[in-house]
Amino acid sequence: MTDQKLVSVQQVSNHKTPEDCWVVVDNQVWDVTDFLEEHPGGSTVILKYAGGDATRAYSEVHAPSVMKNNLDPQKFKGVLDQSTIDAEWTKPPPEENPAVMLEHEKPPLHTLINSHDFELVASKTASKKTWAFYSSAATDLITRDANKLCFDRTWFRPRVLRNVRDVDTTTNILGGRYKLPLFVSPAAMAKLIHPDGECAIARACERKGIMQGISNNSSYTMDELRTAAPTTSFFFQLYVNRDRAKSAALLRQCNQNPNIKAIFVTVDAAWPGKREADERVKADETLSVPMAPSKAQNDKKGGGLGRVMAGFIDPGLTWEDLKWVKQHTHKPVCLKGVMCADDALLAVRAGLDGILLSNHGGRNLDTSPPSIVTLLEIQRRCPEVFESLEVYVDSGIRRGTDVLKAVCLGATAVGMGRSMLFATNYGQEGVEHLVDIIQDELETAMRNIGITSLAEASPDLVHTGDIDHLVPASRSHPYARAIAKGRRPGSKL
Amino acid sequence: MTDQKLVSVQQVSNHKTPEDCWVVVDNQVWDVTDFLEEHPGGSTVILKYAGGDATRAYSEVHAPSVMKNNLDPQKFKGVLDQSTIDAEWTKPPPEENPAVMLEHEKPPLHTLINSHDFELVASKTASKKTWAFYSSAATDLITRDANKLCFDRTWFRPRVLRNVRDVDTTTNILGGRYKLPLFVSPAAMAKLIHPDGECAIARACERKGIMQGISNNSSYTMDELRTAAPTTSFFFQLYVNRDRAKSAALLRQCNQNPNIKAIFVTVDAAWPGKREADERVKADETLSVPMAPSKAQNDKKGGGLGRVMAGFIDPGLTWEDLKWVKQHTHKPVCLKGVMCADDALLAVRAGLDGILLSNHGGRNLDTSPPSIVTLLEIQRRCPEVFESLEVYVDSGIRRGTDVLKAVCLGATAVGMGRSMLFATNYGQEGVEHLVDIIQDELETAMRNIGITSLAEASPDLVHTGDIDHLVPASRSHPYARAIAKGRRPGSKL
Amino acid sequence: MTDQKLVSVQQVSNHKTPEDCWVVVDNQVWDVTDFLEEHPGGSTVILKYAGGDATRAYSEVHAPSVMKNNLDPQKFKGVLDQSTIDAEWTKPPPEENPAVMLEHEKPPLHTLINSHDFELVASKTASKKTWAFYSSAATDLITRDANKLCFDRTWFRPRVLRNVRDVDTTTNILGGRYKLPLFVSPAAMAKLIHPDGECAIARACERKGIMQGISNNSSYTMDELRTAAPTTSFFFQLYVNRDRAKSAALLRQCNQNPNIKAIFVTVDAAWPGKREADERVKADETLSVPMAPSKAQNDKKGGGLGRVMAGFIDPGLTWEDLKWVKQHTHKPVCLKGVMCADDALLAVRAGLDGILLSNHGGRNLDTSPPSIVTLLEIQRRCPEVFESLEVYVDSGIRRGTDVLKAVCLGATAVGMGRSMLFATNYGQEGVEHLVDIIQDELETAMRNIGITSLAEASPDLVHTGDIDHLVPASRSHPYARAIAKGRRPGSKL
Amino acid sequence: MTDQKLVSVQQVSNHKTPEDCWVVVDNQVWDVTDFLEEHPGGSTVILKYAGGDATRAYSEVHAPSVMKNNLDPQKFKGVLDQSTIDAEWTKPPPEENPAVMLEHEKPPLHTLINSHDFELVASKTASKKTWAFYSSAATDLITRDANKLCFDRTWFRPRVLRNVRDVDTTTNILGGRYKLPLFVSPAAMAKLIHPDGECAIARACERKGIMQGISNNSSYTMDELRTAAPTTSFFFQLYVNRDRAKSAALLRQCNQNPNIKAIFVTVDAAWPGKREADERVKADETLSVPMAPSKAQNDKKGGGLGRVMAGFIDPGLTWEDLKWVKQHTHKPVCLKGVMCADDALLAVRAGLDGILLSNHGGRNLDTSPPSIVTLLEIQRRCPEVFESLEVYVDSGIRRGTDVLKAVCLGATAVGMGRSMLFATNYGQEGVEHLVDIIQDELETAMRNIGITSLAEASPDLVHTGDIDHLVPASRSHPYARAIAKGRRPGSKL
Repeated sequence: MTDQKLVSVQQVSNHKTPEDCWVVVDNQVWDVTDFLEEHPGGSTVILKYAGGDATRAYSEVHAPSVMKNNLDPQKFKGVLDQSTIDAEWTKPPPEENPAVMLEHEKPPLHTLINSHDFELVASKTASKKTWAFYSSAATDLITRDANKLCFDRTWFRPRVLRNVRDVDTTTNILGGRYKLPLFVSPAAMAKLIHPDGECAIARACERKGIMQGISNNSSYTMDELRTAAPTTSFFFQLYVNRDRAKSAALLRQCNQNPNIKAIFVTVDAAWPGKREADERVKADETLSVPMAPSKAQNDKKGGGLGRVMAGFIDPGLTWEDLKWVKQHTHKPVCLKGVMCADDALLAVRAGLDGILLSNHGGRNLDTSPPSIVTLLEIQRRCPEVFESLEVYVDSGIRRGTDVLKAVCLGATAVGMGRSMLFATNYGQEGVEHLVDIIQDELETAMRNIGITSLAEASPDLVHTGDIDHLVPASRSHPYARAIAKGRRPGSKL
Repeated sequence: MTDQKLVSVQQVSNHKTPEDCWVVVDNQVWDVTDFLEEHPGGSTVILKYAGGDATRAYSEVHAPSVMKNNLDPQKFKGVLDQSTIDAEWTKPPPEENPAVMLEHEKPPLHTLINSHDFELVASKTASKKTWAFYSSAATDLITRDANKLCFDRTWFRPRVLRNVRDVDTTTNILGGRYKLPLFVSPAAMAKLIHPDGECAIARACERKGIMQGISNNSSYTMDELRTAAPTTSFFFQLYVNRDRAKSAALLRQCNQNPNIKAIFVTVDAAWPGKREADERVKADETLSVPMAPSKAQNDKKGGGLGRVMAGFIDPGLTWEDLKWVKQHTHKPVCLKGVMCADDALLAVRAGLDGILLSNHGGRNLDTSPPSIVTLLEIQRRCPEVFESLEVYVDSGIRRGTDVLKAVCLGATAVGMGRSMLFATNYGQEGVEHLVDIIQDELETAMRNIGITSLAEASPDLVHTGDIDHLVPASRSHPYARAIAKGRRPGSKL
Repeated sequence: MTDQKLVSVQQVSNHKTPEDCWVVVDNQVWDVTDFLEEHPGGSTVILKYAGGDATRAYSEVHAPSVMKNNLDPQKFKGVLDQSTIDAEWTKPPPEENPAVMLEHEKPPLHTLINSHDFELVASKTASKKTWAFYSSAATDLITRDANKLCFDRTWFRPRVLRNVRDVDTTTNILGGRYKLPLFVSPAAMAKLIHPDGECAIARACERKGIMQGISNNSSYTMDELRTAAPTTSFFFQLYVNRDRAKSAALLRQCNQNPNIKAIFVTVDAAWPGKREADERVKADETLSVPMAPSKAQNDKKGGGLGRVMAGFIDPGLTWEDLKWVKQHTHKPVCLKGVMCADDALLAVRAGLDGILLSNHGGRNLDTSPPSIVTLLEIQRRCPEVFESLEVYVDSGIRRGTDVLKAVCLGATAVGMGRSMLFATNYGQEGVEHLVDIIQDELETAMRNIGITSLAEASPDLVHTGDIDHLVPASRSHPYARAIAKGRRPGSKL
Repeated sequence: MTDQKLVSVQQVSNHKTPEDCWVVVDNQVWDVTDFLEEHPGGSTVILKYAGGDATRAYSEVHAPSVMKNNLDPQKFKGVLDQSTIDAEWTKPPPEENPAVMLEHEKPPLHTLINSHDFELVASKTASKKTWAFYSSAATDLITRDANKLCFDRTWFRPRVLRNVRDVDTTTNILGGRYKLPLFVSPAAMAKLIHPDGECAIARACERKGIMQGISNNSSYTMDELRTAAPTTSFFFQLYVNRDRAKSAALLRQCNQNPNIKAIFVTVDAAWPGKREADERVKADETLSVPMAPSKAQNDKKGGGLGRVMAGFIDPGLTWEDLKWVKQHTHKPVCLKGVMCADDALLAVRAGLDGILLSNHGGRNLDTSPPSIVTLLEIQRRCPEVFESLEVYVDSGIRRGTDVLKAVCLGATAVGMGRSMLFATNYGQEGVEHLVDIIQDELETAMRNIGITSLAEASPDLVHTGDIDHLVPASRSHPYARAIAKGRRPGSKL
């Protein structure tokens, strides 16, 4: 460093690539090419000043001594020749110029960093009708909001000093191996938000190695989806039709489609819920229907997209009908929509392969219990269920931490529905980005609670004291009998 | 479909009714008349494009293949003749043109889809005085708000896979059969919001098969109401007058009116509550009273409509007086306003026929317990009450789910007061619409928890862990004695 | 009524006083003079239309038949002579014309109907400094807000059908008889908000028969107050001075003043709290102090009025010093500021006459327990205290219901401080109005829970399940020993 | 006072200093020089009117008699000569003229009176990037907010009538004696907010006698800090490097630096958390990076400053590695980041000297438990820990009351990180001011709960009933086994 050679600004400017990078700090010229990789603050921040003067940025963070102490003296290239400074040199670096997001314009995908972002963008860029159909939930939205809130009120008990260098999120679901304990919950009509609809989702699932649930009301058929993504594993979500023949036909299609790994029979929508945002859009629309034949009017029960679509679903479905389903398929049969430990036990008795604890995203019956509460109810009242079938959870999953909490509490995997639809707003790439985000959040959470594989996930790693009062503890209500007795016709009058 | 006949836009336009409906999708002309009924998305959305081009709306939801796969090839009418396209054809369909609601104008009735909507409309369209009288509650509104909140914090435990095709909401109340476990709670002066007042309500109850409670302060007499709605069943809500002769006269009228099925003696208004919104309107008004005779002034205790009207009610009423009531009527006698399990037990002992758990909509004593809490207190401390008399609940019922929760927890029926007044804003039709809404919400909730008759409603179907801490468990406070002892005059000084 | 005499509008106009009042309804002229008193809706509303046409107001509330059914036929004076109608007659009655309240102008006293109103008016009309001094509380205001919230979360268990015609709020306090279980808590410097300061309060207390606590920092001396209100009973709030002689002098003055009934030694202000709103005003002010001698500056601990005034209070006060106090007075000695059941027990042992559970309105130590919580702690841990001395409560009392809850839970009486200062904004009349409001609220609450004297107030009439988790149950913390052991110097290093 | 000498306004004006101060009240001239010190309201308020007319200010607070009663008659100097009044005299005193704070301008330091103020000022005056880096926390900010909230929901149980004249906050930490149970938590890159960075903090700690934790990512080296503040005690916070040699080198530096009293190994950052505010700044920035070499881009996991900086931290660290650390230093070794009682026990077994309960300010894993909850968990499950090592707490400390609560519950000392960085906005003076504030708040709280030394701090002085449900009580979850069994590969399918 005794060689106080003068270096001109033009010379410095010639070294401005990652492969050959000089910077000036306090009029001293340094070659930092080899240091780029080592810089604790990352290489980007240095490369911003490659071939230029980094003094201001440097001194914001570092004491003057740091550079001299950390770099090899040979990297010192000399002193800046002040006489060579020109207008170009003194021009400040380009300002931070954050992209402006117009109200109805989608921001660049990489600026979306969590599932909430996707929801926010959809709320501003999807059509009013699409937004109402996707985002709406039953009546006062209590269950919709409680779904997430109960995850937020479940606390981790992180363990430290465990080797978490390599983390493995792979999961067995119904005998198959997937990259994540996450699947796309079946949700109707993804085409409303993107022309590729469920095909975009299928291709993203193929790339990311996760399972996709196909809605009975999918915009694309199961065969079209298989064509779009030939190696994706699917399960088919079945609404049993009042006309059994139609359901039988669907099951035949499933049987012939090797990518379909299981049938999920939806049972939490015996009757379509009252989704008021959805119905309000519809109520408005009728005002402008040009001709109004009586049979085309909204009936008094409201005419939201949700209710209209549900017309064919059989509200008379019972446990007996599951035998019929099992007769028409050789694939595993699961239930979607279990909300009570008693029904989990019945599902075991019915010989099913899995149950998806779900309240339909709060869309069907308001104040039905958050899924995590049902999971805890099963733990408390009949933990043997976990030994007999696989338990899945959806409704309210927004974060990798939510995924991990459900798995710790006994779930095999979780589903995300609405968020995936919102991500489909960006097509296949959007869904891939969302899956990447969840995977990163999940891996971060696993490491930070001290585990590296999901087999280690255990109830010991979470604390549910903040929601335990929401969990029913015993099967039968102590006063059910007295009330029933009082209700007996003629008991009094 | 080999017949690629050209069809002109004029030809297509001729088929634009539900009985004869063609649409164009991707330049292919289809006859969808027979498909209208089968369309899972309902017929309205297709009829919107009857005789026109539905390509855009179709492709928002469906994959290209759907139409071909689902329709009979014979329904294919040919290819659109592009040369025939004119300005009329390319005109977009009429835009959604939602009706604009002016601040003080009632929106069309069919756009109101829940009880909250009726309240909102009343707040904007009723007179300041009427709104204050109807909406106000005691002092800090804690009980008013807790009434609803406690229903919201009562969770369902829905059961699945039960046949819920046919649901029956009929209910026995005091020996009569009604279409719903719902009655109109007696509320004073319905004429303030509509000239037909209680008559409108009576006619709506007649149409809908539910019971109406007639307020002692009704705008119309019980005979006028009977004339208006000759087959409606009523109960009469009695404020026992300081002048017993006047009450005796009313009871005589009741006895002579066969539509009156019971007498409900109000006991939760021993003294009129302090309804501050109501009193503020009154306080303002006096400022502009043109002459101010001393005896007409508001007294210092405030002069809201509620307090002024309550002047004749006897605050000296006791259990003994109920004997007097029973001597003056042969009809069932119930109490309106029980707020403590101890009084429920006394009502049993007094040989009454029913008790209405009510805090007067939070209008009388702030921080009196929400009705659902009193219902739980009875369960916990004296469930035998349910075997001896009928228990009703009002205060805070806004949803069909609230009705169902009360019934599950032991109530025979529930009352709605304020909401019915707000619905009377639209006259008889408004009340009918509200009853329809509640019935739809109730049926939807019944199906979604897996029951088809109210006899199946049971405490096992709800979980109250979120409000159990609000329920008194034992009769006597452990330290009541020590405190009483300390209070004994002369115990210390 | 067969006499269809025509009556001119001029004739009607002549009967427009309470003593002679005609009104026109549906063109029929009635003399309603005798009915004024009987009208369930009060006389004011009729008198508004005296000598005029009441049709519109009448039909808003009543069915057409009501008048004919209720009035003596002789009161019918004839039919309005339509030909006599003139412009004056058809002029609408004066509109409601609510007084406009300017931001910094006090509204008429009668329009203030609760203690919150007084606070709101003071916030807009008192000087910035006064508002800051009165309203401020310690640091994050948690205790200030919890004081009221804990009352709000204490629920009544009202009993019905008890004769509550006559209600008696009189109370014994330290051997004296007062109209209410309410006293004015001693609060410093009432003159800041009204020139009459504590004198106005004293005169109001005299009129209303309640006790006043005189602050050690009162704007007026105890002798001046006695002169202002010769029959008011006072207690004197003593801050024991670092200079005992000064306190002894004050106690001598107390001994000589027969209106002083007791000495309340303040113990919850061992050190002045950090009232940030107060200190911010002070911090601002110093910016404009014209000369800044070093010793006059705010010290670093802030210089709010509260802290500056507290300079003379002895932080070295102990239970031993109470003996000194008792030696200097023959009057009952009480403690103001007990916040823990253990100290209540020590007060019994020290032979004191009463304890005022108080956290100084949350002004001294944030997150000190709400007074009602301390009251419950005494109940739970040492109910025998109630048999040995009188227990008072202040901090957070804003409503008559709060008063009643405290009395039900064992308090002999409660104090209101801040609210009384805010009422002093209107001088003596303001304080009287506030006391009337609280009395009305208290009587209303007593009647509505079914009691007529405070001797009947009992813990059985309230339920504290919503705040019981805030109440310490046992004396000694189970792990106190382990922690102390760990803290022993040298236990480890 | 019989000497009614006339005094001119000019004469009065000559006595306007603290050493010679006259004021006029009600036209009477008084020498109040000797009284300045005694004035309960402080001298400032009098000096404001020195040599002038104080009538208005006086009568706002005092009754007319007070002056005459309290001052020596000799201090009366005569009656104001009205004829001498001139324009200058009648000019009102300078108005309160609070300094206007511009949005991006730091207000004068003395107007900041609590830690929240420092945060607010930093949010408005620091660069966007700095604010994001300092203030951000993991994902939904639940833990960040719960940290403070749990302190707020921990209630004091203040004891009264204990001599609290002299209060002593000194504390032993790892054998050293400090003025406060408070240290500066190690936080990275203080230079971002002030050029003096950690040096400013070090000098402030030296002045105030508290310990400073040096971040592994400090802007200044430990030797530079020692030079800046030669008598400050430090501990060094170590992120163990993937390249152990680098960590060994740091430990050698620590060994040679006598001011370093201990090594704190960070264990709560096994993987960098997702701090979204931080990442959003970064995401924006990349938009304007002039050249974009592929290897310099933000990776998909986001590129916030926090994540980039964490690249060298070894996620493979285990309890075994602590032996390596202990081999490389002779100083006490503590853990920073324990979040579970089980790990506290392991720390005892590992022979460590202390554990800092910390969730990294909520920056690493959202819904990790608030530190105070972990402290309670240790109490409940393994109180013997307190006898074996020292327990510290950080994350969420904002008030002196928070410090005291932690100490009462067993902590030896607490750390403040973010707040100290925000105070560094004002350089050394800012940090000193913040420490003064915390000390004042702590002393005030100690006195007001009735203790004078931290050895008296005990769990008996707080009540945690409001957060006890958040505390895990037992080690092993009752259903962990059933769930694990169900998860066993092949258990079902």
